[in-house]
Amino acid sequence: MSAMPTPATDALEALSRRLSAVEGAMGVLSWDRMVMMPTGGGDARAEQAATLGVIAHELLTAPKIDDLLTAAEGEPLTGWRAANLRELRRRHAHATAVPSSLVEAMSRASAKSETAWRAARAASDYSLAREPLAEIVRLTRETASAKAAALGLDPYAALLDQYEPGGSVPRIDRLFAELEAALPPIHEAVLERQARDGDPVMPSGPFPVAQQRALAREIMTTLGFDFDHGRLDETLHPFCGGVPDDVRVTTRFSENGFVSGVMGVIHETGHALYERGLPVEWRGQPVGDARGMVLHESQSLLMEMQACRSPAFLAHLSGKAKVAFGGDGAAWQPDNLRRIYTRVERGFIRVEADEITYPLHVILRTRLERALLSGDLAVADLPAAWNEGMRTLLGVTPPDDARGCLQDIHWYDGAIGYFPTYTLGALAAAQLFGAAVASDPAIPEALGSGDFTRLLAWLRPNVHQRASSDSTDAILEAATGSPLGTEAFLAHLKRRYLDG
Amino acid sequence: MSAMPTPATDALEALSRRLSAVEGAMGVLSWDRMVMMPTGGGDARAEQAATLGVIAHELLTAPKIDDLLTAAEGEPLTGWRAANLRELRRRHAHATAVPSSLVEAMSRASAKSETAWRAARAASDYSLAREPLAEIVRLTRETASAKAAALGLDPYAALLDQYEPGGSVPRIDRLFAELEAALPPIHEAVLERQARDGDPVMPSGPFPVAQQRALAREIMTTLGFDFDHGRLDETLHPFCGGVPDDVRVTTRFSENGFVSGVMGVIHETGHALYERGLPVEWRGQPVGDARGMVLHESQSLLMEMQACRSPAFLAHLSGKAKVAFGGDGAAWQPDNLRRIYTRVERGFIRVEADEITYPLHVILRTRLERALLSGDLAVADLPAAWNEGMRTLLGVTPPDDARGCLQDIHWYDGAIGYFPTYTLGALAAAQLFGAAVASDPAIPEALGSGDFTRLLAWLRPNVHQRASSDSTDAILEAATGSPLGTEAFLAHLKRRYLDG
Repeated sequence: MSAMPTPATDALEALSRRLSAVEGAMGVLSWDRMVMMPTGGGDARAEQAATLGVIAHELLTAPKIDDLLTAAEGEPLTGWRAANLRELRRRHAHATAVPSSLVEAMSRASAKSETAWRAARAASDYSLAREPLAEIVRLTRETASAKAAALGLDPYAALLDQYEPGGSVPRIDRLFAELEAALPPIHEAVLERQARDGDPVMPSGPFPVAQQRALAREIMTTLGFDFDHGRLDETLHPFCGGVPDDVRVTTRFSENGFVSGVMGVIHETGHALYERGLPVEWRGQPVGDARGMVLHESQSLLMEMQACRSPAFLAHLSGKAKVAFGGDGAAWQPDNLRRIYTRVERGFIRVEADEITYPLHVILRTRLERALLSGDLAVADLPAAWNEGMRTLLGVTPPDDARGCLQDIHWYDGAIGYFPTYTLGALAAAQLFGAAVASDPAIPEALGSGDFTRLLAWLRPNVHQRASSDSTDAILEAATGSPLGTEAFLAHLKRRYLDG
Repeated sequence: MSAMPTPATDALEALSRRLSAVEGAMGVLSWDRMVMMPTGGGDARAEQAATLGVIAHELLTAPKIDDLLTAAEGEPLTGWRAANLRELRRRHAHATAVPSSLVEAMSRASAKSETAWRAARAASDYSLAREPLAEIVRLTRETASAKAAALGLDPYAALLDQYEPGGSVPRIDRLFAELEAALPPIHEAVLERQARDGDPVMPSGPFPVAQQRALAREIMTTLGFDFDHGRLDETLHPFCGGVPDDVRVTTRFSENGFVSGVMGVIHETGHALYERGLPVEWRGQPVGDARGMVLHESQSLLMEMQACRSPAFLAHLSGKAKVAFGGDGAAWQPDNLRRIYTRVERGFIRVEADEITYPLHVILRTRLERALLSGDLAVADLPAAWNEGMRTLLGVTPPDDARGCLQDIHWYDGAIGYFPTYTLGALAAAQLFGAAVASDPAIPEALGSGDFTRLLAWLRPNVHQRASSDSTDAILEAATGSPLGTEAFLAHLKRRYLDG
């Protein structure tokens, strides 16, 4: 059987490989900037990154690409090649929607605003960031309009689509309304219960960084991370970067304790396992990329919240931590560790939030960024709106803007439309973990003995290997039997925090 | 006064900035590959490097570039802009001389041959590397012919020109003949003198790597290395990489001693200081690049051999080493350290050679690579020719090919025409250091107190800041008053090893 010739598709696949190599190079350079680069290298690096960004943009928007896409769409494609063409068309549509002058202006404004934000947050002085942020909002509005027109979406959906292809704003409205109704009563009930039960005991140190690093590497290996294809390093802000065959996780260790350092590593390892699990045979093609931020965050949260905060795994971790730090006594008992890792608070800070209040932080940000985009909220009025939202949703008022509207980099860095993916990811994580356990009921017990192979054996075909071959919704429904909803997540919270 | 318009030159300067950013990115990715990358990342990295290499080559050989160069050559340029255009023309001539199919074939053959060489060296079995090397020689011959025709040079000169622009083969013949006549008697005399004087005492350890690293960083800072614009890391094979604003030095430490580790760092720091000293206002332009490998090596050897093997500096180093390792006694005395660092041997290995025999190793390699290129020497006959040359030049016969013709990566990696630059660099180093001291006689004493500012104050304007604004010869003559010769080098050897 001889295949029909597909010259346009072949040309686009060659272009995609080139584009992917340039983007991979950018990924490694970005990792280096955050992990290795001396401060004085910043200007040269910015020039390198900007140049590669322009080259990638030019590759994707060259006049011939449109013709090739049209020709390829008339070629006899099936399976992954058809999906690949659809993804490339999507990327092309995003890239060509916005004039390069606007892309450049946004890039300059983001760099300026990020710098201003760092100073503003350090001084807890919103006035230092206000004008740069206003410029970001103005340019984002232009970008959103341009993309909305090109993609046939409303402006906020066009922004969301950059991070979560096909993400639906009406569904976010519905799911977030359900969470906003359901979470505060759960939160109150858990706080009451915690008050009755008293505080867990914190293990006491010392917790030398060298031992924490060794423990983190051991846990990463347990989860399935392959150090022949990745690294662990230390940065102020943990992240997962690199490329699928060379995934680079970072974390932060504090001499004061191992609790958040280890769990941060687990979160990023969840991201890393997704990247590593993407199908080798689709490397360099858009269809082989991670689907979007919802499934990406689902993989980190599935590891962090579902698998590794389970009593079974925390018992395993307790044993490992005792050995690593020579700990002993009540503070190191599995049940005490479980209580520490499921502690719920009324906090100001999203990145420190427990899994019950985290969605409330996201709901606030989503609401505010939509209001900023539409113009319903003036940039000058952001701090007041933020604090008012925190009072309503969480019952606390931030004492200053550093712990309020200056805490997250996203908006100041030009990322508007990103926040909802955190909570959609948390919902997907609960749903996927539930489906994995339903399919293989031995998973929870296996986690207790440090065996993640059963869990990975389910995630690989059901999530990782699907890559971008279908929509997030289709992948999720095929894997779990249901569309994305709040049911599994809320049931999980009640089971973990209120039952038993 | 308004400048005449220079549109073609302006366009070429914009192109050069883009090219420089792509090459800078390649430099950082290459550093990462050797220092940070997990083994499993190799294929993805090779794809990134190859893609950026092709993009850089396309930028330089695009059909419009030739027209722009011709137009620019008719524009009213003076000073650095004229030099810059000349350098870009030179790069363009090299890039367009060779068809891209040959560049690709060479790149594939080098990768294959390098891998074969690693196995061959480990097994000390030349037969494993012979055929891949024959393919390298064949392709290099094609490259040399193509470049010779395009550049109006003879084939070996065309290869040399890649590493040392404007390098003259007849002059290499003359200088190497002088060295080949002068060095063996000096070598013999020093060996006799050493036999009379007895061996120096080796300091005894322990020499923990952490202390060696701290000492190395201290010495680098003493030399003028700025850690805000660079790093020190550890690799099996020391090198200096990165970009001028972010220079990355690597070295290797052995627990068995600090002697070679520290001096290796000093050598690479010499390279790094040259890169850092290139003029900021020419960044991203060919005129702002380091001139060539002769001046580059002159800067590493000036630091390693001229400045830091001086009795004054070794006394300074002796004090620092004592503190770093808690050393005491005869072995740690300045004069003993001086005797260790000026020890001369009859060795097999180029990279371990002293400054007297090093040129003999280079003369052998230069002779052999020219014979391989012309076909006077068959690839199969290389080991025998190598061993015969070692007998003649150094009076020793390598016991195996690992310590013979398999010891250096260069040929197996496709670098033919590079070796002479090591020794031309050593001659230039002696000449430049002599001129620096003649200009500022306080330099040697300053080095003894760890003050390198006087030396750098001379090197910056006379070498570093010249960048590629003129030829190596012109820079050297302006700095030292003489063309490149053996006189300063031989006088230095006699002074250091035979006088006093």
